[in-house]
Amino acid sequence: MSVAWLDEIKWDGDGLVPVIAQEEASGEVMMFAWMNRDSLQETLQTGNAVYWSRSRQKLWRKGEESGYQQRVKAAYLDCDGDVIVLKIEQQGGIACHTGRRSCFYRQWQAGQWVEVASVLKDPAEIYSKNGTRES
Amino acid sequence: MSVAWLDEIKWDGDGLVPVIAQEEASGEVMMFAWMNRDSLQETLQTGNAVYWSRSRQKLWRKGEESGYQQRVKAAYLDCDGDVIVLKIEQQGGIACHTGRRSCFYRQWQAGQWVEVASVLKDPAEIYSKNGTRES
Repeated sequence: MSVAWLDEIKWDGDGLVPVIAQEEASGEVMMFAWMNRDSLQETLQTGNAVYWSRSRQKLWRKGEESGYQQRVKAAYLDCDGDVIVLKIEQQGGIACHTGRRSCFYRQWQAGQWVEVASVLKDPAEIYSKNGTRES
Repeated sequence: MSVAWLDEIKWDGDGLVPVIAQEEASGEVMMFAWMNRDSLQETLQTGNAVYWSRSRQKLWRKGEESGYQQRVKAAYLDCDGDVIVLKIEQQGGIACHTGRRSCFYRQWQAGQWVEVASVLKDPAEIYSKNGTRES
């Protein structure tokens, strides 16, 4: 199906586009993932972030296992039409499968990557149902 | 040369890692680009963002043509070790080669991508020396 706003996106060779999820309220970059056509369409139609899992090769409805959904407040496309920023509201305040707020919890300090954010919830608790790692 | 903090990064099949440049002061996501090993090393050693231009297949020292350099204030690595966020200070307040502040100037509104940020400086002026588009 041809949908004009989807056709404007320059999908990469795998039919994907990189997506940056930024918490609307704090401005913090929470995670980075990929979307295909179906996932972006579902995301903007439902208002809940749906990514494409490259490792599992299937739609990944963020929060379907953890409950930590991302409500989409706004979406932006870049100049080249090949990257998307989502402004989101992070349910539960945890975006990362490690149980941290954001996935970007290691800071470069004098030649080392140093953990600067703590685990808010044990992943074993987050994924107690089936133990898979995607959140 | 083996450098521990570079070896921790999971470079993709092309030897690249995606990089999100976020303005430190405002939290605004300014642009998205790629780095290879050399460009990341130079970036963190000099404190000026250096990307890898996939279209030109060469190092792209951000601002070398436009003067709009990005001073790197902090760098973060994600949980999977395959995405980087840079907190930057954007010289001249313009990151996008279109002359806008940020590359993410089109917002999704009811099924359309609508321009929501204006051109601050004519690209013809920015690139008057040689007319190339990389900033």
